[in-house]
Amino acid sequence: MPNPYTTKLNLKTGKVDLSHGGGGRAMAQLIDELFIKHFDNDLLRQHNDQALFNVPAGRLAISTDSYVISPLFFPGGDIGSLAVHGTVNDVAMSGAKPLYLSAGFILEEGLPLADLEQIVISMADAAKRAGTPIVTGDTKVLERGKGDGVFINTTGVGIVPEGVAISGNRAQPGCAILVSGSIGDHGVAIMAGRENLQFETTIVSDSAALNGLVADMVAAAPADIHCLRDPTRGGLATALNELAQQSGVGIVIDETQVPIKSEVKAACEILGLDPLYVANEGKLVCICAADAAERLLAVMRQHPLGRDAAIIGEVIADDHHFVQMTTAFGGRRIVDWPVGEQLPRIC
Amino acid sequence: MPNPYTTKLNLKTGKVDLSHGGGGRAMAQLIDELFIKHFDNDLLRQHNDQALFNVPAGRLAISTDSYVISPLFFPGGDIGSLAVHGTVNDVAMSGAKPLYLSAGFILEEGLPLADLEQIVISMADAAKRAGTPIVTGDTKVLERGKGDGVFINTTGVGIVPEGVAISGNRAQPGCAILVSGSIGDHGVAIMAGRENLQFETTIVSDSAALNGLVADMVAAAPADIHCLRDPTRGGLATALNELAQQSGVGIVIDETQVPIKSEVKAACEILGLDPLYVANEGKLVCICAADAAERLLAVMRQHPLGRDAAIIGEVIADDHHFVQMTTAFGGRRIVDWPVGEQLPRIC
Repeated sequence: MPNPYTTKLNLKTGKVDLSHGGGGRAMAQLIDELFIKHFDNDLLRQHNDQALFNVPAGRLAISTDSYVISPLFFPGGDIGSLAVHGTVNDVAMSGAKPLYLSAGFILEEGLPLADLEQIVISMADAAKRAGTPIVTGDTKVLERGKGDGVFINTTGVGIVPEGVAISGNRAQPGCAILVSGSIGDHGVAIMAGRENLQFETTIVSDSAALNGLVADMVAAAPADIHCLRDPTRGGLATALNELAQQSGVGIVIDETQVPIKSEVKAACEILGLDPLYVANEGKLVCICAADAAERLLAVMRQHPLGRDAAIIGEVIADDHHFVQMTTAFGGRRIVDWPVGEQLPRIC
Repeated sequence: MPNPYTTKLNLKTGKVDLSHGGGGRAMAQLIDELFIKHFDNDLLRQHNDQALFNVPAGRLAISTDSYVISPLFFPGGDIGSLAVHGTVNDVAMSGAKPLYLSAGFILEEGLPLADLEQIVISMADAAKRAGTPIVTGDTKVLERGKGDGVFINTTGVGIVPEGVAISGNRAQPGCAILVSGSIGDHGVAIMAGRENLQFETTIVSDSAALNGLVADMVAAAPADIHCLRDPTRGGLATALNELAQQSGVGIVIDETQVPIKSEVKAACEILGLDPLYVANEGKLVCICAADAAERLLAVMRQHPLGRDAAIIGEVIADDHHFVQMTTAFGGRRIVDWPVGEQLPRIC
């Protein structure tokens, strides 16, 4: 079709204005010259308000997340890559192979188009690496002062392989608990960026798409994986408490087995944070049959995103559904739900 | 599972605070006592970060929209019902039967929980009426002043019946153009609410789920419907321009055949708006084979949401892809793309 726009979008010094959300020519141009250009797939190029795709008969997984992280750009990623990784991971935590993403942008009037393009490029790159094209979308614009730069919602759909039955309510006493790597990196990277502390350059977010790792795990032990969860907001402590409550069990982890980078530990001490409660964006917790634990651990360590995987504890019977931790000194303490909010807008 | 919360959520005088987005106990309580309570379905009750459902082999449709409408409550609906209707309609405009919705909430600190509950109840009611349960969700909270009460993203998936091939690029010269009812109601209702004009009580938004109407149309003439589009932001004029451009055709409509309520016409005159550019949230445009037009019109008029349906024009060959309108005086004028933004945050 002929180029219907008189001038190209000014991606160097231009800014988002209300007309970019108005449904008219300015919005169409933003979609064509920014979103479709970078997301670059046939479904989006059809310019319909929805995308159609073929599926085989079976179980589909759907998951949604809105991203409001501040700052928009951080060590190890930005809101664009995060918005792909986070939703791909939520879909994958059912054991599903994520297929497609939708993207809804809420932009604040005055946002530099250069910032938006950087975010979109990063998002497109993350989607390409994860193998999950962004096939449909939406753009809204808020008046200046009614938003905060960019908020992004992504929703993902995926196919659950046959024979897989992964759900937060399937943890059973005797199951082993694994984590795919060191915890707390994302939250500390964001906080360090905010606070301008000296260690800000050494710690980067672990933001990554875990669908490849999950596919390897599912292929190796399809029936032995009971629960998967990515410990994002609220960190490992919250993910374990959720799983204990959903399954009606107790959990005991061993402090000495939980992988934490020394820089993260040091940063948490300075910031007054407990790394167990700090967000991750590229880690998963797996609860599996005890006799599959070593096998799964080996599979995870073969994958670049699971190199530091560890068996950190086990599921026990407990009517209180407590999460407990055996400390380095040999005692046990309760790892409770977080109260209040230490780290707002971490994702 | 035992009630893990010490006190119930205060839905009378309580307010959203940052802990409701923190991933911990406060967020879990908000989800349990507000979202799960009202959305009320087994998939949501599983407390997983994704929902699983069975699909037959075939074509799936996915669509997403974020809702940032201001004010949150308006004559004929609120942001909650709108967030269901809008996305159900976008899915249905492929001819698909919408199945499930996801919901992502971005809340501003300080939002009264009573307002949020009213929105959630309205959303639950709309989802129930449309037959599209909300099966997975997400909640984020922004610091006071960084948002504007509530933003909602919904994403919908649906199944496209066999034999249906509806897409914005399928309009062909000779096709007839139908609209399902009077245009401009939604935009005028919102503007009247904002401006506190005298006519505000008489005009209500047309916000409604069109999947039932579409199902009737698809059943009556599955192969004859070429394009469907809901003329939301930018109104009928924008929807027709989009379809003309996607299909590489021209369009001619007859001003005297376009249904517009007299109150809407009067309001538009006062507000300085052209009703062709004013948003609708419960109307659709259908482009169909000419010989199916009368049959589809009869089917549409049988449905409560299509009672005022009309044949408004036809598709012609035109290398310029212009939308033209034969005026009441017999002349023709170009109905161009809207320039700029007359009505920010209309949806």
